[in-house]
Amino acid sequence: MTDRFDRLGLVRMDEEACWRFLAQHRLGRAGLVHMASPMVFPVNYVLDGRSVVFRTGPGTKLALSAIGVRVAFEVDEADEAFGSGTSVVVHGTLHEITDPEDLARARALPLRAWATGERDHFIRVSAERVTGRQFPAPPDEAAQGGPIP
Amino acid sequence: MTDRFDRLGLVRMDEEACWRFLAQHRLGRAGLVHMASPMVFPVNYVLDGRSVVFRTGPGTKLALSAIGVRVAFEVDEADEAFGSGTSVVVHGTLHEITDPEDLARARALPLRAWATGERDHFIRVSAERVTGRQFPAPPDEAAQGGPIP
Repeated sequence: MTDRFDRLGLVRMDEEACWRFLAQHRLGRAGLVHMASPMVFPVNYVLDGRSVVFRTGPGTKLALSAIGVRVAFEVDEADEAFGSGTSVVVHGTLHEITDPEDLARARALPLRAWATGERDHFIRVSAERVTGRQFPAPPDEAAQGGPIP
Repeated sequence: MTDRFDRLGLVRMDEEACWRFLAQHRLGRAGLVHMASPMVFPVNYVLDGRSVVFRTGPGTKLALSAIGVRVAFEVDEADEAFGSGTSVVVHGTLHEITDPEDLARARALPLRAWATGERDHFIRVSAERVTGRQFPAPPDEAAQGGPIP
């Protein structure tokens, strides 16, 4: 792991650290562009190798737009005081899983959705790039004596 | 509060319920479009009346793109098992706070940023529309006996 600090004092995580972080979490936010406007959807996900898989219900914007659409899939963790945190983003494209063999594999994943029906859609985020940053507590705030109530 | 169920069985929250939810949380995700690609940034925020205010560091994409850019500002809460949850999204535009009086007011807000320096930028999300949905635990999962490990 070759962490680097950027000019804002943030720690940039290497790719392996990003995937480990993603493997340890379940809730992410899918950011995408729909009709020229940004949209953000919270979804439960699991990793399947080096891709993110989640379920969505039929007729949702996520399902309707999930044909090669670009996505920023963000997963984060904040400490209780929100003074520091970690954020990892998978940049890639969304694809609905339709191949019967892939679909059977996806259905076997320990995955639950926030909004689903019988006719679930399984969506894969094909990763092109993954980036992660760790945010230390800001020194000015720390000097002021800890968390804001 | 006039909650309604949509066709996926989700509870749509009315606007008042959405603002109450936003007032009770501190961590949100700003989804925006930068160079035609979706981006998602976690930020700590506070409400200032009916707008969201957060800080960001100089030179960040958030700061650079914060001139009237459309935003989907999402705040969510999941139960421990992630079987149910609530998600509220403020749709609007980003504006940097530059007016001296507004800036003094913003600086007095109990606000800390994940990535800031001395030359903080204060960003306001001017809300055009706020929507919220509550996701009950999926009945098929509940029948299977509770949370996925």
